[in-house]
Amino acid sequence: MKFSIIIIGDELLLGQVTDTNSGEIARALAPFGWQTGEIATVADDEDAIREAVNRAIERYPLVITTGGLGPTKDDITKRTLMSIFGGHLEFDPAVFENIKVIFAKRGLELNSLTKNQALVPTSCRVLQNHFGTAPAMWFETNDKARVLISMPGVPFETAGLLRDGVVSEIARRFQPDVTILHKTYIITGITESALAELLAETETDLDPSLHFAYLPTPGLIRLRIDGKDTDDARLRRMHAEACESVERVARDFIIAREDVPLEQLLLDNLANRNFKLATAESCTGGNIAHRLTLRSGASNVFVGSVVSYANEVKEGTLGVNPADIAAYGAVSETVVRQMAEGVATRLGADCSVATSGIAGPDGGTPDKPVGTVWVAAHTPTGTVTRLLHCPGNRSRVIDRASTEAMLLLLKSL
Amino acid sequence: MKFSIIIIGDELLLGQVTDTNSGEIARALAPFGWQTGEIATVADDEDAIREAVNRAIERYPLVITTGGLGPTKDDITKRTLMSIFGGHLEFDPAVFENIKVIFAKRGLELNSLTKNQALVPTSCRVLQNHFGTAPAMWFETNDKARVLISMPGVPFETAGLLRDGVVSEIARRFQPDVTILHKTYIITGITESALAELLAETETDLDPSLHFAYLPTPGLIRLRIDGKDTDDARLRRMHAEACESVERVARDFIIAREDVPLEQLLLDNLANRNFKLATAESCTGGNIAHRLTLRSGASNVFVGSVVSYANEVKEGTLGVNPADIAAYGAVSETVVRQMAEGVATRLGADCSVATSGIAGPDGGTPDKPVGTVWVAAHTPTGTVTRLLHCPGNRSRVIDRASTEAMLLLLKSL
Repeated sequence: MKFSIIIIGDELLLGQVTDTNSGEIARALAPFGWQTGEIATVADDEDAIREAVNRAIERYPLVITTGGLGPTKDDITKRTLMSIFGGHLEFDPAVFENIKVIFAKRGLELNSLTKNQALVPTSCRVLQNHFGTAPAMWFETNDKARVLISMPGVPFETAGLLRDGVVSEIARRFQPDVTILHKTYIITGITESALAELLAETETDLDPSLHFAYLPTPGLIRLRIDGKDTDDARLRRMHAEACESVERVARDFIIAREDVPLEQLLLDNLANRNFKLATAESCTGGNIAHRLTLRSGASNVFVGSVVSYANEVKEGTLGVNPADIAAYGAVSETVVRQMAEGVATRLGADCSVATSGIAGPDGGTPDKPVGTVWVAAHTPTGTVTRLLHCPGNRSRVIDRASTEAMLLLLKSL
Repeated sequence: MKFSIIIIGDELLLGQVTDTNSGEIARALAPFGWQTGEIATVADDEDAIREAVNRAIERYPLVITTGGLGPTKDDITKRTLMSIFGGHLEFDPAVFENIKVIFAKRGLELNSLTKNQALVPTSCRVLQNHFGTAPAMWFETNDKARVLISMPGVPFETAGLLRDGVVSEIARRFQPDVTILHKTYIITGITESALAELLAETETDLDPSLHFAYLPTPGLIRLRIDGKDTDDARLRRMHAEACESVERVARDFIIAREDVPLEQLLLDNLANRNFKLATAESCTGGNIAHRLTLRSGASNVFVGSVVSYANEVKEGTLGVNPADIAAYGAVSETVVRQMAEGVATRLGADCSVATSGIAGPDGGTPDKPVGTVWVAAHTPTGTVTRLLHCPGNRSRVIDRASTEAMLLLLKSL
């Protein structure tokens, strides 16, 4: 089943804002068997919106739009959708109540532009938005064959609405009698092709109601086992069998059995053991601390970090031996080990990770080219280290080294 | 002048990769008077590419595609483009030389798939790619009225090619006799609407060859003064006059006279004064250090950071007085000031920034709701502080507080 996404907003065409909504939608619907057919990004302009919607609804049973629903703009989008789906604007008391709640939460005064957001086309069904003032709107064509869902463009509102019911309503609307099952494994320490080889037999024997989806990111593979069938009992049995088979074959590489971000996995794992975490970062420059603290609740586990860009900070604040820096260089196993142990001791943490490397574009040598990174992970039972050769430019090296350092600690626990 | 962008790649439709190329292209061409008409994201599939290209080339004089040129995929894209623009594949020795140079730099062995990238349609002109193995290709319709440029999809290759000549070739091709001038001011401490009011008279009197573009980002406004005319001497005079007028009226708010990222502006400014920088981050969790160290050359200025998430780290590593944390709370002017001064002293830096706040979603109180952040900037002449109320969710609060802390230091220098 293919569907289409339309992203509405001048700010996207100007390059002022990067679209993350289409990815969010694609990832949310994929487990239910939906494939994104195409994505169109168009201006806040009646003709552009109408043309894109008409084109999409002609080709796809499901069209999702985001954006064009701000207090100053939503008349254009709503008017355009009414010109296609019919209806007229009517005041919706429930939407108005929601707007008042949102404004009260933000400590803001209602204004007339915002009140207008409670005017909703009579041709749509409202999906309440608990994350913002603009409701999502569910339209259907006269023959009921096609659905268009219009959502606001603010990313955390889009994500919230998808989670809050949009995805499940789509699943129910299009496949009311089908059972859908998913199981995600997070796998590391093996390449995608080697994993596929390992699972080749399992995959060949797979029942047609089941499907393996490989979702690789640098350092990690998410393997999702999708199941879809009208025979609920049979599907559950087949799906469980396939999962068991994966567990048996890939056991050594599985680090999680649900789809959570690596940072959350690490924080949860440490929280369960009552361990506190610190980081000592040279080439990653605070990126590990930043990625961890983007997760709310990080403060239960994460005590802090020392970003030791200068050698004096490695020595003074982390207690690395200056003679070792002189003898082995800052990018060395000895130094990264002392950084990890030093930060744990000095910040009072049970566990730590440390990085020291050459992110580039300058600073590489024949012995230690750009991308050379030593990472260390320290736990109460000891310290392990690993030498990485990270490909790509500066930001990719930083991100990959951050991921590998967190993975090393996760595997050491 | 409107143009169209086509982003090719299954990984984008799957939501595995976020498209940043379209924004890069839009921002690069905007100063030359080009507006993005629409962006289409399509699969690595012959029919999808052909349909999108045909549609775009019919409507726009310029079409730019990115992606679909990897070693395993480029036969599809090239074949599709030849079905539209004609020609056949021919070995291009200069492209092959470039591939060999790139592989040697990366220490990799050539393989046959990569050699195929040197096969180029005879109907295009090659624009050499010094950042990767796939060349950019410049096609024109038979009547020479329309141009399609096919570029590889790796973001730093796209950005490099745009900078390296694609943008200037487009400018020359479409407006050979026109002089184009730009001047960007970075402005802070004033809202966009107040700035527009301040500049209203200047803007009303503006010669038709000139145009003001306002490019706001949280905490900053970029004001670009674009000029375009066939009379070179006259345009230069008018453009200089408009810039003088902006300087006169908005002087108090201008912090830079060229378009550079805030982080680079701060690093350059500190480098010019031979100052070293440290950061002490609580709620921003290392994001300031991360943003600074994403810039190559940061190590000349940035010595390091202490991410003091736990109060014990604020006290032990930064020397904040525990009695003050108890009396005023960690999110207070007193504490953030001590953090800034403590990190400068302990890490041996001349300047520093510090942050302490409530990023949410938990931790807010009626007195200090989510988004309350104290920032401090320390220089050899003293320490200044500022109280922020940052809107939005956790990641927006973190990012806004990081920006404001850097701005506060920049203005204190």
